[in-house]
Amino acid sequence: MRDKMEILTFENAAFEVYVIAAALMVLKIMAQGWMTVYRMLKSDSGLASPEDVQKGLFNRNPNSTQLEINDYVDRSRRMHRNDLENIPAFLIAGLLFIMVDPPLWAAQVLLYGFVLARMAHFVAYVTKQTHEVRATFYTIGSFIVIYMAVHVLWVVLN
Amino acid sequence: MRDKMEILTFENAAFEVYVIAAALMVLKIMAQGWMTVYRMLKSDSGLASPEDVQKGLFNRNPNSTQLEINDYVDRSRRMHRNDLENIPAFLIAGLLFIMVDPPLWAAQVLLYGFVLARMAHFVAYVTKQTHEVRATFYTIGSFIVIYMAVHVLWVVLN
Amino acid sequence: MRDKMEILTFENAAFEVYVIAAALMVLKIMAQGWMTVYRMLKSDSGLASPEDVQKGLFNRNPNSTQLEINDYVDRSRRMHRNDLENIPAFLIAGLLFIMVDPPLWAAQVLLYGFVLARMAHFVAYVTKQTHEVRATFYTIGSFIVIYMAVHVLWVVLN
Repeated sequence: MRDKMEILTFENAAFEVYVIAAALMVLKIMAQGWMTVYRMLKSDSGLASPEDVQKGLFNRNPNSTQLEINDYVDRSRRMHRNDLENIPAFLIAGLLFIMVDPPLWAAQVLLYGFVLARMAHFVAYVTKQTHEVRATFYTIGSFIVIYMAVHVLWVVLN
Repeated sequence: MRDKMEILTFENAAFEVYVIAAALMVLKIMAQGWMTVYRMLKSDSGLASPEDVQKGLFNRNPNSTQLEINDYVDRSRRMHRNDLENIPAFLIAGLLFIMVDPPLWAAQVLLYGFVLARMAHFVAYVTKQTHEVRATFYTIGSFIVIYMAVHVLWVVLN
Repeated sequence: MRDKMEILTFENAAFEVYVIAAALMVLKIMAQGWMTVYRMLKSDSGLASPEDVQKGLFNRNPNSTQLEINDYVDRSRRMHRNDLENIPAFLIAGLLFIMVDPPLWAAQVLLYGFVLARMAHFVAYVTKQTHEVRATFYTIGSFIVIYMAVHVLWVVLN
């Protein structure tokens, strides 16, 4: 059995898988913020704070309708919220999963599987696919996180 | 004193407490997403995206009122938001707290205490108890996270 | 080169920087929740759940307008949301960054830089500075997280 103190080092290939998947998912969260910024600027709408409705570099033609909800911008905020409901839990569940020293293939399937499921969810959401398509990718990602957390509890409590 | 390199291993009982509490809280976040899905399907309302109002497996009788806010579904979303405002911070604060090598009983009281406070908050919210009841459990959970973060700063800066 | 197993210990000064920055950011998230509570109580408005509109310790003069959105309270919720979009990703990105054993000065500049950027963002938001001012501090924080995640990927994949 692996020396437990070596688990959180790059000598452990499963830990490397975690670091790659986690860094990609961190970038996904941050990129979603920039997609919202891009859509606000491009559509000149979807602002969130009253003080944003004033002339400035970001807002050359201010008017009060800019505070109304606009699906183009709000879609990006909803995608961001969906990320926040799933990715932070994944980031911790994945770390816990690595701590119980799973086989490398299991780490690869689950962690990279989550990354792929969230990328597919992004595409389905941004292209306005039906609820069923989006929900399928949400479900895959969610089940991976749930599986990892249950697996960790199983190992620790046995 | 414990060898610092053994802290993040299962030889450290306080770390095991963290892993159990963290896995349970990850499951709480994910379960809240499924509660929203269940309530959307059961009430046939509370949809979030315009494209969801079309006939499909999840939506056999689409109509535009399905996009209106519905307390039955929105309550689950508010509970989810409350989770996101508390649980990710707990997951990191708990890990930092374990790193400063607290006595086992302190880890048990604080980490399991947080889990119990959030379970009680869930029950209070879903059964529509008064603001005072809900706020009491929110406060317990919040103070535990704040205590752990302050304790960590105290240890590190002294 | 440092023994990889010593990275996550307080013998590593860069890890200590992470722990301090992470504990401060955990406190920031929790404090934002209390700011919302304070503003709800002070303005007697901005409640989120229908059952909160009833007489009690927190609400001596209930009336249905208390459920309407109120910028004074909602501003604190938006600030909280902005925290949730940035801080959990930072907490993991910072930990990953420490794992690849950066020079101490880089850890200090990036991690304390993020803390300062978020504190400045808080001040800009709460004092209703223009979008440009707020966006500048958001951008600094966001780029630090993105840089750390890309740096980690670069190190691991090379």
